[in-house]
Amino acid sequence: MPQTIVNPARLTPPEARALFREGLVTPTSGWSAGWTQANLIALPKEQAYDFLVFAQRNPRPCPVLDVTEPGEFAASLFGGDLRTDLPGYRVYRDGEQVAEVPDVLSYWRDDLVCFLVGCSFTFEAALLDAGVPVRHIEAGTNVPMYRTNRDCRPAGELSGPMVVSMRPVPAELVATAVRITSRYPAVHGAPVHVGDPGALGIDDLDRPDFGDPVEVRAGELPVFWACGVTPQAAVMRSRPPFAIGHAPGHMAITDARDSAYQVP
Amino acid sequence: MPQTIVNPARLTPPEARALFREGLVTPTSGWSAGWTQANLIALPKEQAYDFLVFAQRNPRPCPVLDVTEPGEFAASLFGGDLRTDLPGYRVYRDGEQVAEVPDVLSYWRDDLVCFLVGCSFTFEAALLDAGVPVRHIEAGTNVPMYRTNRDCRPAGELSGPMVVSMRPVPAELVATAVRITSRYPAVHGAPVHVGDPGALGIDDLDRPDFGDPVEVRAGELPVFWACGVTPQAAVMRSRPPFAIGHAPGHMAITDARDSAYQVP
Repeated sequence: MPQTIVNPARLTPPEARALFREGLVTPTSGWSAGWTQANLIALPKEQAYDFLVFAQRNPRPCPVLDVTEPGEFAASLFGGDLRTDLPGYRVYRDGEQVAEVPDVLSYWRDDLVCFLVGCSFTFEAALLDAGVPVRHIEAGTNVPMYRTNRDCRPAGELSGPMVVSMRPVPAELVATAVRITSRYPAVHGAPVHVGDPGALGIDDLDRPDFGDPVEVRAGELPVFWACGVTPQAAVMRSRPPFAIGHAPGHMAITDARDSAYQVP
Repeated sequence: MPQTIVNPARLTPPEARALFREGLVTPTSGWSAGWTQANLIALPKEQAYDFLVFAQRNPRPCPVLDVTEPGEFAASLFGGDLRTDLPGYRVYRDGEQVAEVPDVLSYWRDDLVCFLVGCSFTFEAALLDAGVPVRHIEAGTNVPMYRTNRDCRPAGELSGPMVVSMRPVPAELVATAVRITSRYPAVHGAPVHVGDPGALGIDDLDRPDFGDPVEVRAGELPVFWACGVTPQAAVMRSRPPFAIGHAPGHMAITDARDSAYQVP
């Protein structure tokens, strides 16, 4: 690397993971089309119970797709190595980000439980198929993500704001976008808000808290979906002694098909 | 009690819970139509993490709708008292059932975490609305439930077989029953099996492991749904030191609407 990936949408999950393991750092929206992508949050066993209850109480932002045994770094949904096969990681101590790194081998601990949390990239192929444009894929950038003024329901020591991702949608396609994404309840499902960033406490769409800004064109509305970076926002507020997350937008590409998370 | 309940379908959840608190013991299928019913499993905090992972790995039989803080006996979905407001409880020590009682006040412990788990009674009103008969409601008996030969994915110290409930469905309505119940993924969703009890390791439909047998008439197929008694089957096999469950079929009537668990 940096090598040019000609068509990342066509790579299988093992092929994509091999590139990330070799050091490629890139957002993964549009990669390995048809394969489910997931957020990662790894916490010491001591904090893992609180996280599972937090996720149960906040299923829109925190749909748990898989949980490892403590110290394990493969998962039933993810045949690769969770320590190396994502394209980017963030490491937190006492809620402060202390590193952003391409692998976490040197940070690994045997008491870590890894949670794979559903990601809205999962329904982007379905949006495109339905004729709904996805601006950050067109632009080749990372999806914009924002902390909101909506607090999650706390659990034990964990609390924090809901994080959302945003996609600008032409007004005449908003209903289509809602209908399509409603069919994927395990990967954030329908939007949590349409149209008014201020109502979510977002002052400036051009300054996302995570990822890159995108253009909202005339005739488009900003549409907001719950986002799996929410666990990292909870880590930042609640300050557990240690945590590892994916770098926002730099997801785990799993061995599950998008269709596995689609309801009729 | 025993008093005659003229039309239990019309009782509100608080009205039904008051009757149970006063000592009425009855299966709850058909009660408080439109209000979601739930299975109860209460475990010491020490075992609660394993149960949450078990539930995440086995979402068909174990969809968690709510989790209490340790020692709490109300839940956000259940305004009553979880120790008294169900119509029947089973108490387990080291996996052995040691009591079946109308309340658990004398067994309560401050380290207990209560899990409310989705119940297939939730979609029975929708089945009836679609013209699919529900035999145990017609008969005024408890739904038949069976241990199967399908093991759940274990988690930590917890393992056990999947339990299923059975409803006989006229062959021409099986597709309708599948379609309707698919819309309720959080309360067991679509059937796990149609037609052949032997394939699930069930030798004799007339001898359910829990609940009452029902008649399967000519032209009907037995249809099997995952059942929220599965956590109690795991307790019986895995033998945690202490657990409380609802008496099978004697559910927690919650303050949530059935429609809250319906997908489009």
